[in-house]
Amino acid sequence: MKNPYVDQPTDRHPSLGVRSKEPLNAETPLELLAESLLTPNEIFYIRNHLPVPMRLSDDTYTLRVGGDGLKSRRLSLGDLKKRFKQHTIVATIQCTGNRRKDLMDSPSPKEIKGLKWEGSAIGTATWTGVLLRDVLIAAGIDESDPNIRHIRFEGHDEDITGSTYGASIPVSKAMDPRGDVLLAFEMNGKELSRDHGYPLRVLVPGVAACRSVKWLKSIEAHAEESESFWQQNDYKSFSPNVDWDNVDWTSSPAIQNMPVTSAITEPAPGRTHVVKRDGDDHLTVTVKGYAWSGGGNGIVRVDVSVDGGTTWQDATLKKIDQQPGRGWAWALWECEVEIPKGHTGPIDVVAKAMDESCNTQPERAEGIWNLRGVCCNTWPRIRLDISD
Amino acid sequence: MKNPYVDQPTDRHPSLGVRSKEPLNAETPLELLAESLLTPNEIFYIRNHLPVPMRLSDDTYTLRVGGDGLKSRRLSLGDLKKRFKQHTIVATIQCTGNRRKDLMDSPSPKEIKGLKWEGSAIGTATWTGVLLRDVLIAAGIDESDPNIRHIRFEGHDEDITGSTYGASIPVSKAMDPRGDVLLAFEMNGKELSRDHGYPLRVLVPGVAACRSVKWLKSIEAHAEESESFWQQNDYKSFSPNVDWDNVDWTSSPAIQNMPVTSAITEPAPGRTHVVKRDGDDHLTVTVKGYAWSGGGNGIVRVDVSVDGGTTWQDATLKKIDQQPGRGWAWALWECEVEIPKGHTGPIDVVAKAMDESCNTQPERAEGIWNLRGVCCNTWPRIRLDISD
Repeated sequence: MKNPYVDQPTDRHPSLGVRSKEPLNAETPLELLAESLLTPNEIFYIRNHLPVPMRLSDDTYTLRVGGDGLKSRRLSLGDLKKRFKQHTIVATIQCTGNRRKDLMDSPSPKEIKGLKWEGSAIGTATWTGVLLRDVLIAAGIDESDPNIRHIRFEGHDEDITGSTYGASIPVSKAMDPRGDVLLAFEMNGKELSRDHGYPLRVLVPGVAACRSVKWLKSIEAHAEESESFWQQNDYKSFSPNVDWDNVDWTSSPAIQNMPVTSAITEPAPGRTHVVKRDGDDHLTVTVKGYAWSGGGNGIVRVDVSVDGGTTWQDATLKKIDQQPGRGWAWALWECEVEIPKGHTGPIDVVAKAMDESCNTQPERAEGIWNLRGVCCNTWPRIRLDISD
Repeated sequence: MKNPYVDQPTDRHPSLGVRSKEPLNAETPLELLAESLLTPNEIFYIRNHLPVPMRLSDDTYTLRVGGDGLKSRRLSLGDLKKRFKQHTIVATIQCTGNRRKDLMDSPSPKEIKGLKWEGSAIGTATWTGVLLRDVLIAAGIDESDPNIRHIRFEGHDEDITGSTYGASIPVSKAMDPRGDVLLAFEMNGKELSRDHGYPLRVLVPGVAACRSVKWLKSIEAHAEESESFWQQNDYKSFSPNVDWDNVDWTSSPAIQNMPVTSAITEPAPGRTHVVKRDGDDHLTVTVKGYAWSGGGNGIVRVDVSVDGGTTWQDATLKKIDQQPGRGWAWALWECEVEIPKGHTGPIDVVAKAMDESCNTQPERAEGIWNLRGVCCNTWPRIRLDISD
């Protein structure tokens, strides 16, 4: 049998933290993530479920539109660019399993299956394309039709049996005039790279990135969600008491909007950072990170604590001005954390974000532990060691 | 000076828990709250900021529509009912300060100002009225006009200086075809009572109830939010390190969507419930409550723990089927909580809900403490005492 990974992109940045090689799954170096509001394309995290498809080109590519109640048609990239207004939005996308490591490292003895993503399976870019809404309207969609409840996406990436990647979103999100769902061909002003879905991908802002299907092959309207493995039996959240022996995949909805989260990117988590007091009575340490929430909920505030969450210090936010309910992009934050007078020895720094809907993050993993390790948004934590 | 509270409603139910008499602020008996998906009008919580206005009647009432870019007009109740399509939605409304008691009783030595609401400043009803969106369209609103960013509401209720209650919502919510913002005249199929805003109130589903202005006097479109005290200097959330000495009201946005929350209604919180084991090795206790989230995020799951959150049991949900993103109504839940084998003595039961966006509740108060005591959504907790 032919190796399905024979023709994969060769321009992959060596600094990416590889979580799996075939398919490639790799994340940005954490310490670079909070350096700029837009993540450079070269180091943007890559989440591939299947081999990157071969033989796609601008010239021959066509998108198939169809399904219940839509006029069946094929659109070339040229058609899309010429016939529909182009839009650019700034949006963060995040792998549903970002920060899975923090759930895997929590005390539960039960098994989580999934890639051990740290905190960088997330990134922000400007995305340019046409509105899915406009394409659906041109295809004659009738939103009031009770048989049109989900918009399914299929990718060109396929497994060895020929089965393709797929996902769907509710028609309400697809058609929302403020939903900003794009069929995107540019990322940060450049043509999409092969790893990011060249020549065309879906970009569903505010929603788990697994629904932003890359290498888009078709769009269909249906009464039911995508029948794909990833929609039905994969990206779902369950109670901590559900494990691989008793899971009923039909009992929980497919994840769409993601919860509020944040991460500390500097000093990096996972090791102890020695800080010399050098006789200073007043000692501060610069702590940086990002914060993001799904559903268009912009970040309102990030608080930082050095006493386990009893008292809190405000972080300064850097963010792009976006409308209420359309806060698709993350906030970067920075805090000059005050170390208590006279303290020496280890000290933990934790952070938490609050979004536009006043949602906050859970303190610890036990309450949100789930067998797929998705939606981890516990308080991020780093350890300092203050020495004299 | 005339007593502004001289002509107040006399049909107030004696079982309501009164938190202030003038203006009346009173909540439903907690143990009745989770008994039915729709809260009976008679025991629905009442939150008045000012005296209930006098001399409003069906016949003489008119609503003023105006502001930037709207045709200035007056509409009678008859006009509204005849000229616009009537809609009925099921929605929960919640006072921004619901469960403030749990923040007030938390360890912080700093002062919270506000009514000491327990867990019942929340209720669910069917609301019948016309869509605010339709009224704004008829008044010629141009959504793309950059000077129209907020819809302001003014009530007929006024203080002794003649200043009225007011609030606003973003135009995006007001005009969202799936936002379901009503100008409502019926509650659970009956004409609004005086305490609930007769003859007309705003009903903004998914949003803090302080924006659902009662006794509606006027609607205006503006570039800026309502200038009312309640929009500018009251219903906002701040970091735990902000107190009454250092608060800058301009530094935080007015609360709109509310975060995910839940409460235990049975056994009632606040006292210890003795449960006799009577030799039973397998002992369960029925625990009931409600769960709700703002922004149209339906409740997906409620988990219950008897070991402080290390392990969890699933609750059974009872809820109304609503579309994704339009989950305006709460879920009621019930759990046969298993008490660990052989356990005697005190045991705490905690609960937490997860909504459609996978947001969950914070465990304890310290991280969400705020000087106005708003948006309290910590894990609810009751104490049992298991005796032999």
